[in-house]
Amino acid sequence: MNFKIRAAKMEDCKDISRMIMELAVYEKMPDQVKISHEELQRDGFCQNPFFECLVAEVPEEHKSKQGFTVVGYALYFYTYSTWKGPTVYLEDLYVMPEFRGNGIGKGLLSKVAEVAKKKQCVRLQLSVLDWNTPSRDFYAAKGAQDLTVTEGWHFIRFDGQNLDNLANEAPKD
Amino acid sequence: MNFKIRAAKMEDCKDISRMIMELAVYEKMPDQVKISHEELQRDGFCQNPFFECLVAEVPEEHKSKQGFTVVGYALYFYTYSTWKGPTVYLEDLYVMPEFRGNGIGKGLLSKVAEVAKKKQCVRLQLSVLDWNTPSRDFYAAKGAQDLTVTEGWHFIRFDGQNLDNLANEAPKD
Repeated sequence: MNFKIRAAKMEDCKDISRMIMELAVYEKMPDQVKISHEELQRDGFCQNPFFECLVAEVPEEHKSKQGFTVVGYALYFYTYSTWKGPTVYLEDLYVMPEFRGNGIGKGLLSKVAEVAKKKQCVRLQLSVLDWNTPSRDFYAAKGAQDLTVTEGWHFIRFDGQNLDNLANEAPKD
Repeated sequence: MNFKIRAAKMEDCKDISRMIMELAVYEKMPDQVKISHEELQRDGFCQNPFFECLVAEVPEEHKSKQGFTVVGYALYFYTYSTWKGPTVYLEDLYVMPEFRGNGIGKGLLSKVAEVAKKKQCVRLQLSVLDWNTPSRDFYAAKGAQDLTVTEGWHFIRFDGQNLDNLANEAPKD
């Protein structure tokens, strides 16, 4: 199947928003999604955007059952390692189920890697759920390391009341 | 002990660079540090900086054995959740061993939380090594969730030849 990967435009945010929800359903946390397509437009298409995004598009004749031609996305941003310098973090990589097996996911991932190299980033990082074996196998087959397994890195999060409490205890200037 | 937390200035990069190496030694990966203080200056004090940094400073009379008054730092940047919007990621939090137990680490963490709230970020995230019990206990005591334990998130990394291979396989435009 033909597909094209291109930088997302502001008009793609409705499609991206739809697929963010599809991915959250797959990850079994759909009630966690609080971001609308308007917020994606504001945060990704401003002067200093919080993220960049690529989309995968198929020709009209291959559109999805519901009529969509934007069928996958990769949303990423720039992070920083105090050991290595600028790095890329891939927040989401998604291809609609009916379009899998056509190399679209691989194409999106490779394009993000190409962006990373162009920007002199020496790492591309992401997170995956332990039960998501298809994704873990996909990344491992492409040579990725699982740093939680090999080095023991754990993800820690403050949010809600805990974050408020911390902020309220900040020393006064 | 008196201490002051303030935004890092370009002139602090030598101190930050010294402490990045001290932290890497503690994390048992000192040979991984490839970033110089000149690179920190370039990447953190440009028009669109890759990171922001706070430093903890003690008065001259409390300087360290080697004569340092900048004795801790917190280096962070802005990331993005497609579920929640802008978030803060704390890459490094460090206090020199001889200054621990004075609330400096807590002060730095709280100040970063305050920054996060001011910027309307609903999450503050970071990573910690599984054997680093003092740090894991410190974050847990402040109410943080360990998402690797509770939800099963793993860290995945492409770098070196794997990243080059991926980039070279990117579909042509």
